[in-house]
Amino acid sequence: MNRVVLEQKILSENDRMAGELRQRFQEHGVLCLNLISSPGAGKTSILERTLEGFTPLDRVAVLTGDIQTDNDAARLARFGFPVRQITTGGTCHLDARMVEAALTGWRLEDLDLLLIENVGNLVCPASYDLGEAAKIVMLSVAEGEDKPLKYPAIFFKSALMLLNKIDLLPHVPFDLAKARANAVHVHPQIEMIEISCTTGEGVDLWCKWLNDRRSLRPGFLDSSPL
Amino acid sequence: MNRVVLEQKILSENDRMAGELRQRFQEHGVLCLNLISSPGAGKTSILERTLEGFTPLDRVAVLTGDIQTDNDAARLARFGFPVRQITTGGTCHLDARMVEAALTGWRLEDLDLLLIENVGNLVCPASYDLGEAAKIVMLSVAEGEDKPLKYPAIFFKSALMLLNKIDLLPHVPFDLAKARANAVHVHPQIEMIEISCTTGEGVDLWCKWLNDRRSLRPGFLDSSPL
Repeated sequence: MNRVVLEQKILSENDRMAGELRQRFQEHGVLCLNLISSPGAGKTSILERTLEGFTPLDRVAVLTGDIQTDNDAARLARFGFPVRQITTGGTCHLDARMVEAALTGWRLEDLDLLLIENVGNLVCPASYDLGEAAKIVMLSVAEGEDKPLKYPAIFFKSALMLLNKIDLLPHVPFDLAKARANAVHVHPQIEMIEISCTTGEGVDLWCKWLNDRRSLRPGFLDSSPL
Repeated sequence: MNRVVLEQKILSENDRMAGELRQRFQEHGVLCLNLISSPGAGKTSILERTLEGFTPLDRVAVLTGDIQTDNDAARLARFGFPVRQITTGGTCHLDARMVEAALTGWRLEDLDLLLIENVGNLVCPASYDLGEAAKIVMLSVAEGEDKPLKYPAIFFKSALMLLNKIDLLPHVPFDLAKARANAVHVHPQIEMIEISCTTGEGVDLWCKWLNDRRSLRPGFLDSSPL
C-alpha cells in the first residue's frame, strides 16, 4: 500500500468517526467548534476571554490539544468549566479518535457548547474533521496578511476568521484591507471579526457571534462549503 | 502495513536520501542550513536581510518551500542570487526528495552556501532531514515564550534559535528570560540570537554567526545532538 492510498484510508476512517461524533453532538444539542491557528496566534487567550464572560449556568466544556505540556488546560481550568488536555505526543493535529476518547465520562446532555482548541498548526488540522459544526481560523496580525493565500485549505474550510492582536497594528507591517481581500479570495463566504485578546477590543463581537450560533444550535453551518 | 510502520519506512527512506544530499554538500564544500518556524515568524524577511548584505561574489543559493504560491521566491529573487520555490501542494514540510529535485541543473561546485526556507510549521519539518549541516529555528516574540516547551522537537534539533521581532517587545507580553530558559531546558547547547528584521537590530550578529560557519564549511555541526 503506498503512502497516498494509506493517507486516504486514514482520512476516510477519520471522516467516519467524525460523522458519528457530529451525530452525537446534534442529538444532544451541542454546538462544537474547532479553533485552528499557527502557534502563538492566541487560541488559548480567546478561550480565556470567552470563558471569563460565562456564568456557572453556561453549559460549556473545552478540549485543548498540544504536542506536549498541559499548560493550556491549566490556564483554562481556573474558570470552573470542564477542561481536558489532549496531548498528542508528537502528532501535528487532533483527529476524531482523540476527541472521542477525550469525551469519555462527560455527559453530552449536560452541554450545549464544546470548544476545541486544535494543535498550533495552519496546515495539517485542516484535513481532519472532528465532528465540529464549524472550523474557526485565527490569524494574528504579526503573521502577515498573505497567510490566507499561503495556507488556503484552512481559510477555505473555516466559517469565521478571527483576526487577533489588532492592538499591534500600529507596530507591524500588516495591510488590513489586503488581509480581508486575501481571505475573501480564498473563501468568499468567510466571516471576519477583528479582536485583541490583550485589550479586549472586538471580543464582544466574537461573543455575540458565538451566542447567536448557540441559540441556533448544531447544524447551523450545514451549508458550509466542506 | 499499519500507519506507524509506514511512517517509519517513509522517514527511513528520507534519511537515506538526506544522507546522500549531505555527502554531496560536503564533497562540494556547500554549507546547507534548514530554516524552520511558524507561519509569519519572519523566515523570508531574514533571508532578505541576509541576501542584501552579500555581494555578487558570494556563492549562495536559496530554496524556499510553501504549500501554495511562489511569493517568497519572488521576494528573494530580486537580490540576483539563484532562488527556487518548492511548492508542496498541500504537504506540510519539505523532504529530501523535494530538495534533491529542486537542485536539478544547479552546479554545487559554484556554491558555498545553500539556505533552505522550510514550510511554515513548527511540527512536521522537525522530522524530515534535508541533508542540512544544521537546522535553525526562528521564533517571533509575538508567539509567546512557551513555544520551546510546546514544540520541543524542533528546538532540540536546532543548533540556533533566532528570536525575531524584538522591536515588538514593548508591545507584547513576552518574557525574554523565560523564553531563553525554556529553550535551554529543551536543548542546553542551543545558541540564541535576538533580531528584528524590521529595524535590522541583531542582523549583524546573525550574519557573523553565518559567516563564521561558512568559513568552517560543512561538518561543523557533526557533534549536534541529532
